[in-house]
Amino acid sequence: MALNLSGYAVDFKAVQEAVTRLSPFIHRTPIVTSGTADERVGRRLFFKAENLQQTGAFKIRGALNAVLQLKESNPAVKGVATHSAGNHGQALAAAARNCQLSCTVVIPNTAPQVKVNAIKGYGANVVFCEPTPQDRKATSERVCKEAGLTFVSPYDDVHVISGQGTLGLELLEQVSDMDAIVVPVSGGGLAAGVCLAVKSVKPQIKIFAAEPAGKDLEVSLRAGERLWPEPPRHLETIADGLRTQQLGQITWPIARDCLEKTVLTMSDDETVAAMKFVFERMKLVVEPSGAVPVAAVMSDRFRLLGSDIKKVSVIMSGGNVNLDKLPWC
Amino acid sequence: MALNLSGYAVDFKAVQEAVTRLSPFIHRTPIVTSGTADERVGRRLFFKAENLQQTGAFKIRGALNAVLQLKESNPAVKGVATHSAGNHGQALAAAARNCQLSCTVVIPNTAPQVKVNAIKGYGANVVFCEPTPQDRKATSERVCKEAGLTFVSPYDDVHVISGQGTLGLELLEQVSDMDAIVVPVSGGGLAAGVCLAVKSVKPQIKIFAAEPAGKDLEVSLRAGERLWPEPPRHLETIADGLRTQQLGQITWPIARDCLEKTVLTMSDDETVAAMKFVFERMKLVVEPSGAVPVAAVMSDRFRLLGSDIKKVSVIMSGGNVNLDKLPWC
Repeated sequence: MALNLSGYAVDFKAVQEAVTRLSPFIHRTPIVTSGTADERVGRRLFFKAENLQQTGAFKIRGALNAVLQLKESNPAVKGVATHSAGNHGQALAAAARNCQLSCTVVIPNTAPQVKVNAIKGYGANVVFCEPTPQDRKATSERVCKEAGLTFVSPYDDVHVISGQGTLGLELLEQVSDMDAIVVPVSGGGLAAGVCLAVKSVKPQIKIFAAEPAGKDLEVSLRAGERLWPEPPRHLETIADGLRTQQLGQITWPIARDCLEKTVLTMSDDETVAAMKFVFERMKLVVEPSGAVPVAAVMSDRFRLLGSDIKKVSVIMSGGNVNLDKLPWC
Repeated sequence: MALNLSGYAVDFKAVQEAVTRLSPFIHRTPIVTSGTADERVGRRLFFKAENLQQTGAFKIRGALNAVLQLKESNPAVKGVATHSAGNHGQALAAAARNCQLSCTVVIPNTAPQVKVNAIKGYGANVVFCEPTPQDRKATSERVCKEAGLTFVSPYDDVHVISGQGTLGLELLEQVSDMDAIVVPVSGGGLAAGVCLAVKSVKPQIKIFAAEPAGKDLEVSLRAGERLWPEPPRHLETIADGLRTQQLGQITWPIARDCLEKTVLTMSDDETVAAMKFVFERMKLVVEPSGAVPVAAVMSDRFRLLGSDIKKVSVIMSGGNVNLDKLPWC
């Protein structure tokens, strides 16, 4: 039970500082409940509707915390850059605009036009790269060097992690006596932040990771070491916000020590069914990545967990989906 | 400014009693804001996300208040009945189930199967009628007589009106210093309830009606008398929860005295555009009827209202929509 949470690159104090830094700018998103979901699952569920957050996803917490901190520590900073066709790209663009900084987002030349437009809509520059991890990295480095921009990782950044952690502190205030939290995991920024925040205050709360098939986080968690194949690869999944297979170098030790060893792995079919459930019964627009934790609590594996897990919070983010092409249509 | 609100069939005290009666059972739905919507409209908007209410619409407030009150005053009551293929039908079915009463809903034989299933899903009996106001009325009367059921009108019932009024009191608690509220109007149950609640506490708040084209509420409001053609008819509109042209006999005097004379009339195109805006930008599933007030605040007519109207609450309900057939697909 007694966890030592002091040996990581980021600590609980940074999460508390992020709360103060972010609170003037972001929404305190509501908790939504559903009698139908509770009946189906046999537990009391509390859905953190983070799809209602600014920019439609939790990513603004980490991105804005990183940009605000950067400007505090270096008022002369020129701008920021990242690589992401998804919610982190939009979030960093919005965060930079909020702070009157320039922003460049490196995007694979295969990304859908709707995502490119969303990022441009927040005033960021877009630079295209080949759809490989190698070219993405090289292009980002070149862009940062040429324009004097500071790179902000989607997940492996201490300020991004502490920013995402603010969601954990909100949950603690909004849902009393939680037994567990289900968190989606990709690079691990949200998971690490929520673990730090929640385990520092209530170490007895169990934190379960939900992932798309192929990630195999449980193998590494049970071994206590990184067992992913190299070089890093992207998963083929409808949950396009959760394509990164490996956790980051900063996020991994926190996840390793704090997450439950049981990982909830969802197929695309399960994810789409959960997504439609959220639209139909909960009246919320959620993207596949946001529906993965919902699918997780509805899964047989979660059902078989101990009956001591009564009250469960489910982090549901984001809501950026192409409405002209819903996966069930 | 000084309104006399004491001469109606239902009064403010009934709304306060409904708050006590309903609070153990219904959600306190959140207020959602959108920077994009505020920028577009040039005012601060507070969307009451009543699509997140039990059964997906505000209708549960009135229906449950009526059923609970019925059981309080007559513990031997056998059951309830109504005519509605829409949200009131679902709400009364859910309310009756909550109180262990039987419920029969009279539905036109042209209603889509999805609505029939939703009502049956709450355990109610369904009886079909011809799709005319005459046969609907005759069938409802026959069903009530044969089975000894009590008829609960979708809007022209004092307990339904006071139940809907609880939404107005919630708004007063959630949005400080509102200048105006935009409320959708069909039979007028919600409008009358919200008027009674809000005008009793803060008479200076302006309450605007939003309607589908063809209703012509403004003509009657400006004349101060019911100028609708007889016999009663239904409007052709995509907003299928707002098809009743005439206000009720109980709701009309309250609406006449309390609503602003300027009525916001929306075309189907404006309603669908607002609906898609809510899905895309606000991440909420809203049906056409629920999008009519959103379209209203985005309309040119609303834009031209006085600049003293700065903070506006928009009642957004419900969220029961066929997701396999969205109007923009």
